Amino acid sequence: MQLALRWAEQAIGRSDPNPRVGCVLLNPQGGFLSAGHTQAAGDAHAEVMALRQARAQGIDPRGATAVVTLEPCSHHGRTPPCCDALLSAGIARVIVALQDPNPQVAGQGLARLAAAGVQIDLGLMADEAEALNVGFCHRMRTGRPWVRLKWAASLDGLTAHPDGSSQWITGPEARRDGQWWRRRAGAVLTGVGTVLADDPRLDVRDWPCARQPLRVVLDTHASTPATARVLQPPGDALLVHGPDTKGTQAHWQAPLGTDGRIDLAAVLDELGRRGTNELHVEAGTRLNGAWLGADLVDELLVYVAPKLLGQGRGVAQVPRALPFGDAQRWRWLDLTPVGEDVRLRLRRPG
Amino acid sequence: MQLALRWAEQAIGRSDPNPRVGCVLLNPQGGFLSAGHTQAAGDAHAEVMALRQARAQGIDPRGATAVVTLEPCSHHGRTPPCCDALLSAGIARVIVALQDPNPQVAGQGLARLAAAGVQIDLGLMADEAEALNVGFCHRMRTGRPWVRLKWAASLDGLTAHPDGSSQWITGPEARRDGQWWRRRAGAVLTGVGTVLADDPRLDVRDWPCARQPLRVVLDTHASTPATARVLQPPGDALLVHGPDTKGTQAHWQAPLGTDGRIDLAAVLDELGRRGTNELHVEAGTRLNGAWLGADLVDELLVYVAPKLLGQGRGVAQVPRALPFGDAQRWRWLDLTPVGEDVRLRLRRPG
Repeated sequence: MQLALRWAEQAIGRSDPNPRVGCVLLNPQGGFLSAGHTQAAGDAHAEVMALRQARAQGIDPRGATAVVTLEPCSHHGRTPPCCDALLSAGIARVIVALQDPNPQVAGQGLARLAAAGVQIDLGLMADEAEALNVGFCHRMRTGRPWVRLKWAASLDGLTAHPDGSSQWITGPEARRDGQWWRRRAGAVLTGVGTVLADDPRLDVRDWPCARQPLRVVLDTHASTPATARVLQPPGDALLVHGPDTKGTQAHWQAPLGTDGRIDLAAVLDELGRRGTNELHVEAGTRLNGAWLGADLVDELLVYVAPKLLGQGRGVAQVPRALPFGDAQRWRWLDLTPVGEDVRLRLRRPG
Repeated sequence: MQLALRWAEQAIGRSDPNPRVGCVLLNPQGGFLSAGHTQAAGDAHAEVMALRQARAQGIDPRGATAVVTLEPCSHHGRTPPCCDALLSAGIARVIVALQDPNPQVAGQGLARLAAAGVQIDLGLMADEAEALNVGFCHRMRTGRPWVRLKWAASLDGLTAHPDGSSQWITGPEARRDGQWWRRRAGAVLTGVGTVLADDPRLDVRDWPCARQPLRVVLDTHASTPATARVLQPPGDALLVHGPDTKGTQAHWQAPLGTDGRIDLAAVLDELGRRGTNELHVEAGTRLNGAWLGADLVDELLVYVAPKLLGQGRGVAQVPRALPFGDAQRWRWLDLTPVGEDVRLRLRRPG
């Protein structure tokens, strides 16, 4: 399963909106036969790739064991069901890490394999398989992407100079690491304020990336200039605006909240409909505060630079002070030096 | 030397303003005879303690090797010179980690021992010995204490609620750890604003402490109430004020800077004269900013709680923005989980 997870990781940046799945075929003695991972949406899934690789090497998979990180699908989507492929190949045993989190299909793939006489083992390294697909699982359960809010701050908790500029607080390694997290995401979101201040590209440049994440700009009045780098290729861009727009880059009209700003929950619903599993938010003080104030953030990705700015903009300007009790305590995921900086990752409790 | 350093650590919280020194006596074959560490100022130094322990066990130290973390003293202070004690005991070899950093005595102790025919080895684990006495070494070289600025902040870089209250952002383990650092310090300094807002004790309660650090309050107009907990025993308190005072707890009058506030460099000079090796600063946003803005901080001790406050006071309100180049980059010392929080330690570069 360790190896199958390693293969599943290869699907990061390729398979969205499909989950990252790896499959390893073993002979009855446990020897390695072949492996595969999910391809781009519409192309083959992990099980089919592993079967193809076996056959390409002249190996008959009959009687083999398939080790799969996610329950094989049982329904016709853009590709035929993987269950059928495994059954027609004569696979004798299937070891699965995680059940499909989609409540409408959960367990049906396994039931169908079991009914055909395949031996099923479920649950090995389920936590690791879920972590790799945290966004897919979350979207299947809630219809919305998993929201990861990223910021880079100085030791004194500032993210930008008093003039709003924020390039660069962290060093090259941390910026490269930040792109690695962008690469995981189905969409990267920012606000028009950041676009106007920094004109960021928000794409993935420092890593190979078969599928650039969708760049999303929240821009109530659609005032992002057409020349903004975030709107240029590679990759698509989505400008989310309100009803009162002046510009021509109007892409999707979102409802406004009572505060006259774009309704962030509605944005999540729309991105969920569009198949965004992980949403990477890289914004300024005000938009960060709106996400946190609305309690819509699932994970924090924080880089701390060993610098003091002394004066500048804070991390997040939350419309109201957050309750200061145990309820708003976050859970540490990790704490890692990255180049000259330090990376903190935390999840919302519960 | 490892063992001698372990003994030297036992002098933390006891020996100030004297350095933390450990001494281990070994027989010529390297076997352990006895050990000792610096006692309270005016009492015996490490070498004398080790010789006493040997004799108390009926061991004749003649021909033994003394492993000492700091160069034995050669001058009459409040106690006779350790060199004399080692020579009259017939010690044949002395292994020393660090030369005495005081430029007026550096090397004289070793020279005197060598002249008497004692074999000298200098430099083993010198960095560790210096780290243990970072404040003493700094004061010997500059006349001023080593300044360690401590703060506890939320993930979003806030240290207090909008109303100024700051109890408690971090959990019990981090607060206990913070007292461990207070215990190392010769003095703990805060401002009148923190005294009025939180009425902290700033003493060492959670650890055994033979000698409470001096509590120092910067209070330009001497308006700290006589009932303030920081002024009560155990331990002494020093109220530092300007020329224009109303109160009765006037202890030491400091010069004021051009900004009308207490001159922090003058405070350091005075504390240096009073024998403070390490100064632990635990203050509010404004005083933190004054220390940082004056570039008088040598080390940062930062606790980060896994919480978001959303609104509140920042870490430091620096009078001017700090230069945003490589020059103000700090150097990581360590990064450690402490209970539910995380501790960052950094030093000024250079």
